Amino acid sequence: MIRLVVFLWFVLVSFELLCQDKIRSSVKRYVKVPAGYLMVLRQNDRVLEQLENFARVENIPAASFTGMGFVDITFGFFDFQTRKYAPRDFKSVELVSMHGTIAWKKDSTSIHAHGVVSDNTFQAFGGHILNATVGTGSVEILITVHDKQFERTKDDAIGADVLSLD
Amino acid sequence: MIRLVVFLWFVLVSFELLCQDKIRSSVKRYVKVPAGYLMVLRQNDRVLEQLENFARVENIPAASFTGMGFVDITFGFFDFQTRKYAPRDFKSVELVSMHGTIAWKKDSTSIHAHGVVSDNTFQAFGGHILNATVGTGSVEILITVHDKQFERTKDDAIGADVLSLD
Amino acid sequence: MIRLVVFLWFVLVSFELLCQDKIRSSVKRYVKVPAGYLMVLRQNDRVLEQLENFARVENIPAASFTGMGFVDITFGFFDFQTRKYAPRDFKSVELVSMHGTIAWKKDSTSIHAHGVVSDNTFQAFGGHILNATVGTGSVEILITVHDKQFERTKDDAIGADVLSLD
Repeated sequence: MIRLVVFLWFVLVSFELLCQDKIRSSVKRYVKVPAGYLMVLRQNDRVLEQLENFARVENIPAASFTGMGFVDITFGFFDFQTRKYAPRDFKSVELVSMHGTIAWKKDSTSIHAHGVVSDNTFQAFGGHILNATVGTGSVEILITVHDKQFERTKDDAIGADVLSLD
Repeated sequence: MIRLVVFLWFVLVSFELLCQDKIRSSVKRYVKVPAGYLMVLRQNDRVLEQLENFARVENIPAASFTGMGFVDITFGFFDFQTRKYAPRDFKSVELVSMHGTIAWKKDSTSIHAHGVVSDNTFQAFGGHILNATVGTGSVEILITVHDKQFERTKDDAIGADVLSLD
Repeated sequence: MIRLVVFLWFVLVSFELLCQDKIRSSVKRYVKVPAGYLMVLRQNDRVLEQLENFARVENIPAASFTGMGFVDITFGFFDFQTRKYAPRDFKSVELVSMHGTIAWKKDSTSIHAHGVVSDNTFQAFGGHILNATVGTGSVEILITVHDKQFERTKDDAIGADVLSLD
């Protein structure tokens, strides 16, 4: 009898957690506006993955975006010697500026984004965004959609990908 | 006789000052452009109040904006313990980046804006804008207008307002 | 005979270098998109000059722009005493944010742009852009075109040019 009660209680709690999670993730992340889309990301959303997912689902040929919010973020500075990004994490910071573009690299969406962040000292840090997750707040992004598909291709002169307009 | 002259002189000067003030404040602060509005604020204009006033007068359902200029500004960092913003003032600084949104909270316009500033050392500081006044220069803002009304509502998970797309 | 070979070799090499240069400079720098234009600048391109050239060639009445990339840049802070810009150079830095406007001053295009940069320490610096050249990377700019011509005129109250909306 006790086992049955515990089991039913467990089922109920699991169900409620699932529902909460479903409600949370079912909240709309973007809506169509004349310029393109307005995106609002919520706590624990991963910014680059949400933008990639959006581009795939909405079949976006290319876009430019600007935004701001509150995040945990990893910047990387490209080292041309090692050809790798030296990363640095910033936790629980205001995202005071974000600029980026959505394009394609072969069959995958390719996000290129730069950000500026600040903490309770207000000192600003910035860089190429390797990773960003929404903190105790939100991230608001205006996505201006283009009508042509643009690819990132390697510019041999610099050995790095550049957005091609051809 | 002398009293009359002094009185008339006083009336004239007051009238001229009133006119100058009227000319200054009658200079257009924004014009309609295809994307929405281009706003140019002048010395001593209060940035957030001008955006609120614009939204009310033009009956804007919602908007995203970007801008830059020269300001006296107060940033605040939200302390989740005290639930207050710890403020810091920056005087006579370049506003090198501003990103924000205009939405509604019940019957009032609600501005959310982040900025980055720098002084004669070029070191950058940024944060959530609590207050900003145009300094010896201007502030130029591109306002991209949306066609739906968006509300800021409390996200209980984080205890802060979030722009709702529903 | 040897003289002839050397001469022909010289002609060939010169021709090839010319061709490479032509291919490089013939790569499209901007394309029309619904919001206006998407511009992608390449290594060694001068940012302000490319924007001025674009405005002249495409007969742009006025525009607002946002962008990001990788640059060598010179910021200036206006000294109201000397009425000159105190400059400072930053080499091989991420351009993490750029905001600006294209307008006219008499018969010339007039660019006003502010930027934020960061290096491998991720510390951010910002200011009024006096000069910027694309480094080992690119600069991506979204140009939102307006349908009215705007002039920069002197605001006598502050002794500096302000974008006029009249």
